[in-house]
Amino acid sequence: MTTPRAVPLPVAIDAMGGDHAPEAIVAGAVAAAREGIAVLLVGDEARVAPLVPRDVSLEVLHAPEVLPMDASPTSVRRRPRTSLWQTVQAVADGRASAAVSCGNSGALLVAATLALRPQPGVERPGIATLLPRSDGGRLVLLDAGANVDCKPEQLAHFARLGAAYAVALGVERPRVGLLANGHEDGKGNAQVRAALPLVRALPIEVVGNIEPPAAMAGGCDVLVCDGFVGNVLLKSVEAAADTVLAILKEEIARKLTARMGAAMLARSLGDVSARMAWSAYGGGMLLGVQGVVIIGHGRANAEAARAAIRLAWDRVERDVVGGVGRELDVLARRHEA
Amino acid sequence: MTTPRAVPLPVAIDAMGGDHAPEAIVAGAVAAAREGIAVLLVGDEARVAPLVPRDVSLEVLHAPEVLPMDASPTSVRRRPRTSLWQTVQAVADGRASAAVSCGNSGALLVAATLALRPQPGVERPGIATLLPRSDGGRLVLLDAGANVDCKPEQLAHFARLGAAYAVALGVERPRVGLLANGHEDGKGNAQVRAALPLVRALPIEVVGNIEPPAAMAGGCDVLVCDGFVGNVLLKSVEAAADTVLAILKEEIARKLTARMGAAMLARSLGDVSARMAWSAYGGGMLLGVQGVVIIGHGRANAEAARAAIRLAWDRVERDVVGGVGRELDVLARRHEA
Repeated sequence: MTTPRAVPLPVAIDAMGGDHAPEAIVAGAVAAAREGIAVLLVGDEARVAPLVPRDVSLEVLHAPEVLPMDASPTSVRRRPRTSLWQTVQAVADGRASAAVSCGNSGALLVAATLALRPQPGVERPGIATLLPRSDGGRLVLLDAGANVDCKPEQLAHFARLGAAYAVALGVERPRVGLLANGHEDGKGNAQVRAALPLVRALPIEVVGNIEPPAAMAGGCDVLVCDGFVGNVLLKSVEAAADTVLAILKEEIARKLTARMGAAMLARSLGDVSARMAWSAYGGGMLLGVQGVVIIGHGRANAEAARAAIRLAWDRVERDVVGGVGRELDVLARRHEA
Repeated sequence: MTTPRAVPLPVAIDAMGGDHAPEAIVAGAVAAAREGIAVLLVGDEARVAPLVPRDVSLEVLHAPEVLPMDASPTSVRRRPRTSLWQTVQAVADGRASAAVSCGNSGALLVAATLALRPQPGVERPGIATLLPRSDGGRLVLLDAGANVDCKPEQLAHFARLGAAYAVALGVERPRVGLLANGHEDGKGNAQVRAALPLVRALPIEVVGNIEPPAAMAGGCDVLVCDGFVGNVLLKSVEAAADTVLAILKEEIARKLTARMGAAMLARSLGDVSARMAWSAYGGGMLLGVQGVVIIGHGRANAEAARAAIRLAWDRVERDVVGGVGRELDVLARRHEA
């Protein structure tokens, strides 16, 4: 006897958010739909619907306004008719299982916090992204840009949140590091120096201060930092990977044997590019709210939009939000004990 | 008729500074000496002298003490017998043309500021490093780690210093950017938001706020930031480059055709690795003091030590300190005008 499986709720995506919206976003949604992922497109129906091929059935939720990329994050509160707000609202209303936007990330944070509410015990949501490590593992980086000029207490809070996320993703005893300009206690800026004792006091495994090379070589599972610094780190990694590949291509173009070698290596080079790209991970996940919210790359192309939808779908299937909530509970009880 | 050329003063290098000192440092100095660079080794003579091969003539300046890597930077003031202090003192005494150390970088900053004095108009020296750009140019990044928790005025000061350095290196009208998490005015943390108007008021070409990918693609010639953030950026780039190459090697190992391709590409891969590595540029230059001071990588191997010595030699030959001083004068006069 088989029990009938409930039809899964779709992933809602802000079709108007991002530099290449709506074309790239809809193309990404179509690609995800062809893989069997249920997607709800949110945006100006007159512009979005014509982009969907006839052979694909994709529901469109009409939202007449677009929030500009450079609008003040808090302005979204006064603009419930924007595609960004409606994408998040679709989750709050139980029409979608997750919200994805490649638009104004600060506004997405505000909208998600208001419409979905923080998880119990969470003061401030943060953006967590995954970075490839050279040991084959993945590094949870947070905050990746949501919160600038954090208080030391917020960094300690992100340490808890990041550890809970790593546990929800299957890391048994995540090792948490505090991003600094040296591994010794006493390194860091004033913010980091004040945060370290607070992080060490948490009932989690703490490696202390850690530098980017050690973290990306596998020295920790969760890397905690201020959102300004995390954003710089994330984008520096992206820029460096691009530069390495650009230099490599230039070297190759200069040498015949290298060109022949490159032809044989072509797929590997492509794979590296794909594994390093932010698009490979689909974007950041907003941690600490009662729903799956994915912040895609502002420059997302169709491939990146598809990856963001897949990430959202995966996080729903694995009940990551539930997992984070349960682990935060465990940590709170361990802390009291 | 040829005029006799004065014998150039040697580059002094702290033989005891760095994780792999003195062996790697002396090996790097020997390699530089074989290229015709005059080098003065500073350190414990009993440990240093035996490492120099008989066929190479390298002078050793005895300094009996070693300053630990984790010593407080200001403690160097009370320890004039350390190799680090003596390396800088050799320049102050006119025995050497430049000072290089892969040891305690904070202490090197303190020692250089005290023994060599700041250049006129310089309030605080900063560390400038060069990063490869994907357009083939080079990016001056400062501060790369000397000054943490900078005031906005200091960032503006670094903008002047960095522009002067770029001019001294031959960039005609250097474009200066302020590192931020977005290119719009109003992005950044509190420090950056306060610094932007001050930077814009300088008589230099300012592109405004800029993110790492745009900067590394050629969007500016000088990237200004707080030393904590700059250090994170620098080390993130280093870590990402290592990760890309590690992933590429792993991809190659998995595929036969890729392996064959890799063999043909071997030299290009090596070249990329060399161009991306911090060691390729030899380290950072301390800007704003009256002498050439190079801060090598703490993990310097012989190759990196040699590159640091070559960098120092090049900066002396091109009179970069004089060039920076002259350009700071020009900027000061333009500012008054």
